[in-house]
Amino acid sequence: MSGNSFGKLFTVSTFGESHGPALGCVVDGCPPGIELCEADLQGDLDRRKPGTSRHTTQRREPDQVRILSGVFEGRTTGTPIGLLIENTDQRSKDYSNIADTFRPAHADYVYSHKYGFRDYRGGGRSSARETAMRVAAGGIARKFLASKGIEVAGYLSQLGPIRIDEARFDWAEVARNPFFSPDAEAAARMEVYMDELRKEGNSIGARISVVARNVPVGLGEPIFDRLDADLAHALMSINAVKGVEIGDGFAVVEQKGTEHRDEMTPEGFLSNHAGGVLGGISTGQDIIAHIALKPTSSLRLPGRSINAQGEPIEVVTKGRHDPCVGIRATPIAEAMMAIVLMDHYLRNRGQNADVTSSVPVLR
Amino acid sequence: MSGNSFGKLFTVSTFGESHGPALGCVVDGCPPGIELCEADLQGDLDRRKPGTSRHTTQRREPDQVRILSGVFEGRTTGTPIGLLIENTDQRSKDYSNIADTFRPAHADYVYSHKYGFRDYRGGGRSSARETAMRVAAGGIARKFLASKGIEVAGYLSQLGPIRIDEARFDWAEVARNPFFSPDAEAAARMEVYMDELRKEGNSIGARISVVARNVPVGLGEPIFDRLDADLAHALMSINAVKGVEIGDGFAVVEQKGTEHRDEMTPEGFLSNHAGGVLGGISTGQDIIAHIALKPTSSLRLPGRSINAQGEPIEVVTKGRHDPCVGIRATPIAEAMMAIVLMDHYLRNRGQNADVTSSVPVLR
Amino acid sequence: MSGNSFGKLFTVSTFGESHGPALGCVVDGCPPGIELCEADLQGDLDRRKPGTSRHTTQRREPDQVRILSGVFEGRTTGTPIGLLIENTDQRSKDYSNIADTFRPAHADYVYSHKYGFRDYRGGGRSSARETAMRVAAGGIARKFLASKGIEVAGYLSQLGPIRIDEARFDWAEVARNPFFSPDAEAAARMEVYMDELRKEGNSIGARISVVARNVPVGLGEPIFDRLDADLAHALMSINAVKGVEIGDGFAVVEQKGTEHRDEMTPEGFLSNHAGGVLGGISTGQDIIAHIALKPTSSLRLPGRSINAQGEPIEVVTKGRHDPCVGIRATPIAEAMMAIVLMDHYLRNRGQNADVTSSVPVLR
Amino acid sequence: MSGNSFGKLFTVSTFGESHGPALGCVVDGCPPGIELCEADLQGDLDRRKPGTSRHTTQRREPDQVRILSGVFEGRTTGTPIGLLIENTDQRSKDYSNIADTFRPAHADYVYSHKYGFRDYRGGGRSSARETAMRVAAGGIARKFLASKGIEVAGYLSQLGPIRIDEARFDWAEVARNPFFSPDAEAAARMEVYMDELRKEGNSIGARISVVARNVPVGLGEPIFDRLDADLAHALMSINAVKGVEIGDGFAVVEQKGTEHRDEMTPEGFLSNHAGGVLGGISTGQDIIAHIALKPTSSLRLPGRSINAQGEPIEVVTKGRHDPCVGIRATPIAEAMMAIVLMDHYLRNRGQNADVTSSVPVLR
Repeated sequence: MSGNSFGKLFTVSTFGESHGPALGCVVDGCPPGIELCEADLQGDLDRRKPGTSRHTTQRREPDQVRILSGVFEGRTTGTPIGLLIENTDQRSKDYSNIADTFRPAHADYVYSHKYGFRDYRGGGRSSARETAMRVAAGGIARKFLASKGIEVAGYLSQLGPIRIDEARFDWAEVARNPFFSPDAEAAARMEVYMDELRKEGNSIGARISVVARNVPVGLGEPIFDRLDADLAHALMSINAVKGVEIGDGFAVVEQKGTEHRDEMTPEGFLSNHAGGVLGGISTGQDIIAHIALKPTSSLRLPGRSINAQGEPIEVVTKGRHDPCVGIRATPIAEAMMAIVLMDHYLRNRGQNADVTSSVPVLR
Repeated sequence: MSGNSFGKLFTVSTFGESHGPALGCVVDGCPPGIELCEADLQGDLDRRKPGTSRHTTQRREPDQVRILSGVFEGRTTGTPIGLLIENTDQRSKDYSNIADTFRPAHADYVYSHKYGFRDYRGGGRSSARETAMRVAAGGIARKFLASKGIEVAGYLSQLGPIRIDEARFDWAEVARNPFFSPDAEAAARMEVYMDELRKEGNSIGARISVVARNVPVGLGEPIFDRLDADLAHALMSINAVKGVEIGDGFAVVEQKGTEHRDEMTPEGFLSNHAGGVLGGISTGQDIIAHIALKPTSSLRLPGRSINAQGEPIEVVTKGRHDPCVGIRATPIAEAMMAIVLMDHYLRNRGQNADVTSSVPVLR
Repeated sequence: MSGNSFGKLFTVSTFGESHGPALGCVVDGCPPGIELCEADLQGDLDRRKPGTSRHTTQRREPDQVRILSGVFEGRTTGTPIGLLIENTDQRSKDYSNIADTFRPAHADYVYSHKYGFRDYRGGGRSSARETAMRVAAGGIARKFLASKGIEVAGYLSQLGPIRIDEARFDWAEVARNPFFSPDAEAAARMEVYMDELRKEGNSIGARISVVARNVPVGLGEPIFDRLDADLAHALMSINAVKGVEIGDGFAVVEQKGTEHRDEMTPEGFLSNHAGGVLGGISTGQDIIAHIALKPTSSLRLPGRSINAQGEPIEVVTKGRHDPCVGIRATPIAEAMMAIVLMDHYLRNRGQNADVTSSVPVLR
Repeated sequence: MSGNSFGKLFTVSTFGESHGPALGCVVDGCPPGIELCEADLQGDLDRRKPGTSRHTTQRREPDQVRILSGVFEGRTTGTPIGLLIENTDQRSKDYSNIADTFRPAHADYVYSHKYGFRDYRGGGRSSARETAMRVAAGGIARKFLASKGIEVAGYLSQLGPIRIDEARFDWAEVARNPFFSPDAEAAARMEVYMDELRKEGNSIGARISVVARNVPVGLGEPIFDRLDADLAHALMSINAVKGVEIGDGFAVVEQKGTEHRDEMTPEGFLSNHAGGVLGGISTGQDIIAHIALKPTSSLRLPGRSINAQGEPIEVVTKGRHDPCVGIRATPIAEAMMAIVLMDHYLRNRGQNADVTSSVPVLR
């Protein structure tokens, strides 16, 4: 109810502050018998981890996850899976000087109002560090989905003014550059752009795309828990996200019906403007979503703000920060999509397991 | 769990099919003592109602709502409010010819897979007719919010290629044209555009914007139930919506941090790129959201599809349909934003009523 | 959240006041394809209905239920099932004289505090009339369970000082007397007892027992949502219930371990002290629960109380009331057990459908 | 949904197995600003801790709790509170010999069916060791309630055949004997009884009573989430509980209305047969509940059972076990009642904070 849990049958509940003793997560509702070990989760955590290139914050956190429960002899037991990441350098910095300061475009001001005071160390609970636990939980969902043949993959589709070129799209390239760009040439230009931005002390927005493949027809519940509505919820809940699109997204505003509708033939759908969702329910085509991430608010360039006494101040953020939070957001977006899909997989099974449809399956 | 309910403390649960006996809704969690009568809800229902101009479907439904419970002597009692709209012409049409047909870009195909069969009369549960109940429930939320000084208002910001001009923006104009356009000149061009479209037998997308004013600082829960994430969920759950933006939305991709951050002064925020939400929590500024609605799928122009036997067919939709579903979506988007805000108002009060903040309130 | 809904995957939400326009219910989560019509629900409603013998209230309500949605061509569609019972004589009485009065042992006093005012007509929402909707919803659950071979049956095991004799237990007798007593001889004594009680103007408590047969092993979730904990919740939520027992219930306080434990042999369990639940999970044996219902508070014998101004008053309840609410509670208890079992059936399927156990099934 | 969480606005989610690396808990929804440190929780944990007298299991666990999040500078922040207890001796025993064995009256058999396999070490998730986390979470609720003047206290009211005598009732005595008995003389007899029982190798049931004082009028939601229904749920979810009573409980079966009804005078209620709850809502009187706990199933006396292959076996439980689980259950029952009351306190505030009642408050 305080908004720290997500999912209905498969639930992910996180806890922990950026500079508290530890980050934790309880993953509940995972069916028994799934093979699972810590190494299964560490891979995605390492992809999200800071400090792996000069384009992200230089804070070093090993982000080593421990499984505390719910796994026995290498398999899930059906009981809740407790996950823990100890914060190793949480005392390394002195944040007391910002206790009184509201950094523009941060959550400082609103947390102070909502709770009367706040844990100001490194953003406390509002820090994107919390997303490490989502990535770990998403790893469990991905393991389950993989056992059903379902895959989730993401990439950076735009960094500031630099868009990827669909003609050069190569999934294999995504793992080869620090931006998760599927276009090697664009990645090279991003390197140059980010180097300049860092010198300038500024930050920039980004666009991430996520795709799920082999999703069966029928996932998603009509009305409020449509698959796309739950995806929008999950993706908008990622720090810095300001927009979510399914399929063609905002381009549909200027589309005519004849252009948008995905016609069907016995051989399959002829297009996928819908992004794999109709009436809130998966069609069997690829599920496609895009998100917009705002530029980081922590800048070396001074900004106007107020302090807790309401007096005008000038804020300059020193220290280690991501100049483009979008860069590390690809594994987070993948995790959230995986969590949504697993939840709906179980929900559909709970309520429709008796259903046998004589309708052909199209892609 | 089947996705027919929305909200945590203030919950809206709808039921009913397009051509069944009735549409209904249970609104639970409304505090006691709020003045409420059927006329309070009828106004917005009439704004959404079909057949009020030549640009929407010519189906005539009075959409007369009855309050069945939860109101006594003109005030809410704190018990659930049952709402009912009888369908008056549900037997007027013969739909058996489409029982076997999957209309492209409709939910026919996915419902048949998910449930094994479907109520095919007028789209059954997947019909946008369901949103009438959301509008009625939203009316209750708007009454409550108004008692706290909070207002929600929406408008059409784009219809196909025609965008409104901010320079001609006039809130009073919204109620004066059938498109909910705040720009009278744009509305005039929309008339012409829609007349041609109708002749062509085609449909078009649209963009709706919604604004909430006088929202207090502090609504929204960190992490998964951020105010913007819940808004994204609520808005994406409206039929035909393919994209949701908060504040600057997808424009943030190309923004630098210095441009995006909303600086604060003792006199207030200097801008509102964030759309009134930081860290998932309301800032006290206007809450601003935009949605993209796809063009209607029901077209007089033939499209390729398959039937339940998997054979290729040609589909032509006859009868009365909205050529632009976006036109009637403004009251629905307002209703969903009001429902989200009321829910978060109550949640915040439940958990933070003891909080007294010494931080100044800015707009 | 306001407590008008029950269940997680299979949810029952009721609305309506005793003397409002109608009682209603939304049953969500029922799988598609189950045969269902109004007559399926009317049977249990008639068993609960007042006025069928001289031992219950003489108020006459036909309690005719309408299905408003979620059923198409005689089968459930998987969408929410709206149920409605119009109150036919809600304006027949003048209750204004009790608007100001708190009847002892009624909810008048607490409702007035909680909500600031109350719908005082016939108890409003606190009236046991609300349970009619639970019986209707339970009828849907019983239909589903029956398709899986699961049956739920209840009976009156004690009325005031009169206990049934196990030696004369006959399930067929339950339907033959107005008390739901499985012991014909006890029923005869109850007739006499009730006639005297009615003359006296007093009321009496009762004990109801409910049994579910052919429940598969494995229903129920460990820890908080144990099958017995959910049953306790469901049964204690019935008006007038003050105690719930599973299996041997309070008798276990004086039992030794060697007496209580249900030993297992390859041929089955040797006893059922546990009432069919171990560790919160069904064992495959009969599920057995007992409830205690307090005597009705509406008495012709005067009682001391206060009015809304805090002044002492004497209360005498005139009119039509049940002298033993326990008499009509058997169908309600059956309904609540059926609802709990169906919910757990779906929950277990959602999360454990892949499980294959090589362990033998015992009864 | 898997039943490891309890509460709506104030939620407690536990994880961890008896012999896994750790037990954990996430407490969400605690308002900000409550003073809290580990010592606040340790007191109740020590009351529940095994090995403090010869009448409980001799397993030694320090049960030292760590707060991992949600507390900053000695006060709760409003974010989730992560709690952790490391299991210190989880590898000290070899349980592989029971992997294949179903102990009578244990959860072994049902877990194996439900999940296909189970963590058999010390009962895994079904062990009462899980309740340590409930006691810790309950400590947070008790801190909050204390700030509102509300207290929760429990005691052992019966151990096997030995009942406490109300005439010798002394709250101060509860902390002075290992049984939580408020009757010193009964406690002395319990010592003798338990010594004999231990020699015999048998176990015995018990009855625990819990009382909450100074609960305001108005907590609890009508219909399904009545305060008493939620208490029944919470208390029945405690390991080994087979019965729950509110107020007079099963004694109401034989009570007449004139005896049961609690009359009101301007000076207060004249009795408390209802146990402080009418219509599911607190009356302002003491909330009173009783529970029955079955005798431990782990006995040195051999019992008949089957193994995973369905073959008959004889089971003898060696090692350290509680001969009466009821002895240590008092702090657990207190914790569950505190959790329910805090949850309903917040729910009522969220939905009824505007209510002002002119009705007098009675005790």
